[in-house]
Amino acid sequence: MVRILSIVLTVNSNPLLSTFMINNLPDVRKVMWKAGFAIGAFCLATELIFCILRRRRSRPVNEVLFFPCETVCMEHILSPSLQLSCFCPLTHGKKTSMYHLLQHILSASSSLDVCIFAFTNTDLSRAVLALRSRGVAIRVLVEEKNVSICGSQIPVLLGAGICVRFNRTPISMHHKFAVVDGRKLITGSLNWTCTGVHDSNENVIVTEVTELVRPYVRQFARLWLCNDPEQTCV
Amino acid sequence: MVRILSIVLTVNSNPLLSTFMINNLPDVRKVMWKAGFAIGAFCLATELIFCILRRRRSRPVNEVLFFPCETVCMEHILSPSLQLSCFCPLTHGKKTSMYHLLQHILSASSSLDVCIFAFTNTDLSRAVLALRSRGVAIRVLVEEKNVSICGSQIPVLLGAGICVRFNRTPISMHHKFAVVDGRKLITGSLNWTCTGVHDSNENVIVTEVTELVRPYVRQFARLWLCNDPEQTCV
Repeated sequence: MVRILSIVLTVNSNPLLSTFMINNLPDVRKVMWKAGFAIGAFCLATELIFCILRRRRSRPVNEVLFFPCETVCMEHILSPSLQLSCFCPLTHGKKTSMYHLLQHILSASSSLDVCIFAFTNTDLSRAVLALRSRGVAIRVLVEEKNVSICGSQIPVLLGAGICVRFNRTPISMHHKFAVVDGRKLITGSLNWTCTGVHDSNENVIVTEVTELVRPYVRQFARLWLCNDPEQTCV
Repeated sequence: MVRILSIVLTVNSNPLLSTFMINNLPDVRKVMWKAGFAIGAFCLATELIFCILRRRRSRPVNEVLFFPCETVCMEHILSPSLQLSCFCPLTHGKKTSMYHLLQHILSASSSLDVCIFAFTNTDLSRAVLALRSRGVAIRVLVEEKNVSICGSQIPVLLGAGICVRFNRTPISMHHKFAVVDGRKLITGSLNWTCTGVHDSNENVIVTEVTELVRPYVRQFARLWLCNDPEQTCV
């Protein structure tokens, strides 16, 4: 709209253009026809290009994953270099909800913040370790009473040098969310456990809608600070 | 854009307008100036109005609620007619996360579908009953093993004639979501329990983003059918 207005004003305010039009009377209608079409086509083309660019740039990820999902081989995304040499008896190459969840976690390029009630799933743990080996900054906040449950992956993460904090407040930490690169939220009812993934009806939302992601980023920062072993809760 | 193009073409293709401009040469520049401004102002105004209307119409609800929240009096939204006569010792009029959650549930005008792991919270139960008395179609799907836990509201809902189904499949029903009028989703880590609301760190997303709501509508329909006591699971 602003572009079109500026073109109209430029044509009208240009004395040279007006003088040219007055001195060439017989051609005025023809010129106006051509100019009209040219301006129209130009505006239409630029608006179209801007519209496509805007839509492409601003379309956020919005995906829903439901569980339980079948246990299938995840080697092709957890160890891409080994995918051709995996001969385990599981189904290969199937894109389950777990596959999509791992893909979203592995899409992290700079940071991953996890705030979780329980963490026993080895595929999810391997994804976090893979990010660690790529240099992604990882912070994990977990409910303290679930740190030492059977199959807990927290000792594995601690062993790999990942920064883990424990909720020691009397308020139970029941969240199950992660934030990828500060802009993609993964949240829902799913605890990062084997039972959750394979034996329960669960839901996970993956979204980049800023209004939804920002509150979780702030909440993680608050809880992280609140559970700093050297600080008292704020 | 299309509107502007049509204006340009109309001006150029109108022989009367062109003839008028040729016969009134001294005024051509003045007329062009005025016409330019008039067209510009008109287009700017209409684009602005359309832009405001579009934004207002298409802006979906996107809200995040965090728990735990303080126990405050909810009589002013659960029994609006009694709000002035409530003398309970709780804080009155405070807009906590629970207040907003209740507001979203009470916004239902045609239907409410609840798919929940455990349901013991009396404020939430009263909201569902209030909807029932307004004639809203309510369906509640709950994990069977939690139907008779201490404080369960399921017997209350059944007593009021609300349609409740129980997950009797071996796959545990761990969801905690509700869909209001088929277009507003309420989901997160929060079980509809007193512990969840007042004693745990929990999160709830309220959204009207169609890409997020539709899968839950379909999932509820599937689970509802799957748990029809007269049908076998599909």
